[in-house]
Amino acid sequence: STSQTETVDQVTTLLQLCVDRFFVSPGHANVELFQRGLCCSYGPLGMELRRNLLDQWWYSVTRSGAQVFGINTLSSSSRETPTGGQGQLRIVECEQLKQRLGQKELSKGRLAEEVHMLLQRSPSMRTNLLQGALEQFVPSLELVNRKLPFGLAETGLCFQPAEGSGCSAEVTQTSLVWFCSPRTSSQWLDHWTRQRLKWWRKFALSPSDFSSNEVQQEELEQAASRGVRIIYNFPWGQEVLACVWSRGDAELLHIHKGDRSKLQHRDGRRSIPHVVSVTANMDRGAMAFLSNSLQQLKREESKQKLHQRKVLKLHPVLVPIKVALNIGRGATVELRQICEGLLQEFLEAKISVWPGYLETLPTSMEQLNAKYDEMGVLFTIIIGENTLESGLLQVRSRDTTIKETMHISEIKNFLFRYISAADNI
Amino acid sequence: STSQTETVDQVTTLLQLCVDRFFVSPGHANVELFQRGLCCSYGPLGMELRRNLLDQWWYSVTRSGAQVFGINTLSSSSRETPTGGQGQLRIVECEQLKQRLGQKELSKGRLAEEVHMLLQRSPSMRTNLLQGALEQFVPSLELVNRKLPFGLAETGLCFQPAEGSGCSAEVTQTSLVWFCSPRTSSQWLDHWTRQRLKWWRKFALSPSDFSSNEVQQEELEQAASRGVRIIYNFPWGQEVLACVWSRGDAELLHIHKGDRSKLQHRDGRRSIPHVVSVTANMDRGAMAFLSNSLQQLKREESKQKLHQRKVLKLHPVLVPIKVALNIGRGATVELRQICEGLLQEFLEAKISVWPGYLETLPTSMEQLNAKYDEMGVLFTIIIGENTLESGLLQVRSRDTTIKETMHISEIKNFLFRYISAADNI
Repeated sequence: STSQTETVDQVTTLLQLCVDRFFVSPGHANVELFQRGLCCSYGPLGMELRRNLLDQWWYSVTRSGAQVFGINTLSSSSRETPTGGQGQLRIVECEQLKQRLGQKELSKGRLAEEVHMLLQRSPSMRTNLLQGALEQFVPSLELVNRKLPFGLAETGLCFQPAEGSGCSAEVTQTSLVWFCSPRTSSQWLDHWTRQRLKWWRKFALSPSDFSSNEVQQEELEQAASRGVRIIYNFPWGQEVLACVWSRGDAELLHIHKGDRSKLQHRDGRRSIPHVVSVTANMDRGAMAFLSNSLQQLKREESKQKLHQRKVLKLHPVLVPIKVALNIGRGATVELRQICEGLLQEFLEAKISVWPGYLETLPTSMEQLNAKYDEMGVLFTIIIGENTLESGLLQVRSRDTTIKETMHISEIKNFLFRYISAADNI
Repeated sequence: STSQTETVDQVTTLLQLCVDRFFVSPGHANVELFQRGLCCSYGPLGMELRRNLLDQWWYSVTRSGAQVFGINTLSSSSRETPTGGQGQLRIVECEQLKQRLGQKELSKGRLAEEVHMLLQRSPSMRTNLLQGALEQFVPSLELVNRKLPFGLAETGLCFQPAEGSGCSAEVTQTSLVWFCSPRTSSQWLDHWTRQRLKWWRKFALSPSDFSSNEVQQEELEQAASRGVRIIYNFPWGQEVLACVWSRGDAELLHIHKGDRSKLQHRDGRRSIPHVVSVTANMDRGAMAFLSNSLQQLKREESKQKLHQRKVLKLHPVLVPIKVALNIGRGATVELRQICEGLLQEFLEAKISVWPGYLETLPTSMEQLNAKYDEMGVLFTIIIGENTLESGLLQVRSRDTTIKETMHISEIKNFLFRYISAADNI
């Protein structure tokens, strides 16, 4: 059907753009990882996008007014593995394993035993960030004078077993583990769900593509009494971006070997805290915002030709490159010097710049704008003869395609205010 | 000898402080990892310190005026492993290995073969960030219109084989891989060495503890023609923080299977770029700055008693917590409201705050100051009756211990200016 073909086209266009414009590294296998919502090899623009996304997540969680502390735990551990699906992936030293396989005098039974023992001693890779936070609960309780509620936040790599897909994979996860009193855990689950959905929608071009739904009783994770998923509507179907689980106290007790006195907080009732976990997959998150922000606009050219304009309308806060600096007609050496000065000024203000003026291959203004639109560049600045004479430069907006004239002394504050305004909506 | 005992005391004090003040998680094994310059489980303050350090590294490399792009590569890969020490650690799925060990009908020889094959197919963990950058060289060359020099920057986890130490370990590495023309590679090595040493010393309390030395011919890494190490003088001896290697073109050619046409840049001579790699261990870096900034000051008390004051004089840019908010005498509810308001104001300005006013356990001002000094908190603000009446508050400086009176409307700008000034020295 037509709609199916359109969807395929849409997806192909999106993935091609991601490669062409340096969001992800080329190669079929790499692009497939990205489409599946897994960590892939990112190019400069993808790396910046995901970095901005992770920074925004961090601020929204640690600066929300709630007591949240950041932690950083190890991605591999030699501790005893609990039942909860951990310990399926282990880091094995090849040499050691090969050495055992090469021992001629061993019987087959002994060999199997030796390999088993080696496996037991090898560190296991984490599959989620929950474990580390539960372990850090006890020292963190001192930090807050044994008072609830508080949270521990972490972002980092987690590893997924292949489970038939042929190869294990990496995912960049964010995790907030929230400790609260048992009777408030359901309210907190609702609070964090609302807060997270609002956060995802804040950066969206069409917020309705992000939705949440309550997990059915039969689909709940082992320890959980309630769960909510935050979902994104990709062209190829719905995928889970984030989860909020109400997990009770079983895992906390299990990790601390049932030592209740260590876990009690100061509320007079000596109860064990309940855990609400808030997790997200930020590789899929980056993909969702790329998919959400790509607009393909058809417009008729003068000679009845159809022309497609592709624009990546990423949110000003997330977009990897805020501004591109280019040279128009005029004395190249002097114009370049002006660009160098502006570049320095932008870098110091932490506004990411694309040094277009360094390109020596001739391109038309149309080609340049088309390229920058696909990269999502918010504004393109043209430094020309006018700038040398009167300090005036041209600023083109990605979203309106309108060109404005502005004085060189105003441009930094203009960009700064524009990005701040978008951030504070 | 006395000096040896003193060193042991110094180290014990430092490590104890790291645990007590939430830089690293408690536990002998964890603290030992940290002391060995490996990644450990970090508490909130250690996590922030390392985050600040990584951010500073990132800015100093990507905003130095040189053309540097950030990338993000996978920490595990299924590609063929080169000779360069990679592929010693592999991620094995336990179930798959156990399944093979459980096959009764297999002979011992067949079993060994099957395990070998499984190992070959398992992804290997990266031991450095060089490989990923060399692979991304070709797509990145398009980004700069095939013009040199340029660099690819990345920070991330790398894994170290145990080599007898019993357990493999994680390290947080930073990497700049710099591509330049063959005849300039030695100059670039000198440039980056100077730039890096200056960077390490910028944040130091005693910069002379950081030094660099040329690597001897016989100690050079396989591919390298020259190398420089940046070294920190720990109480227990010298350790390597960072390395700069001039690596030639052999590895680049090897990875791209000798396809010279793909690798050539536009300088008319069709030469293959040379590689200069700049790496650092940021776990050891965090340890170095903690060690460097801990001052133990002896002072005589009124009754001839000796008193030790421990202050963590971390650089204002690196210090995890810039300011602590506390309450003095007065109407608690109103004072708390003022604190809440200031907290919000600081968070929005991205100034990290310690909400001391939430603590309900009684502590004297001396105890509080001692605690904050050990945490490295730059300024302590006391909100008291005076603040309610006239808007005046007390600000105590970590470095001078002097208390100043300031109006509440000035405090944010004061902190902002103080931190910026320290950053721009």
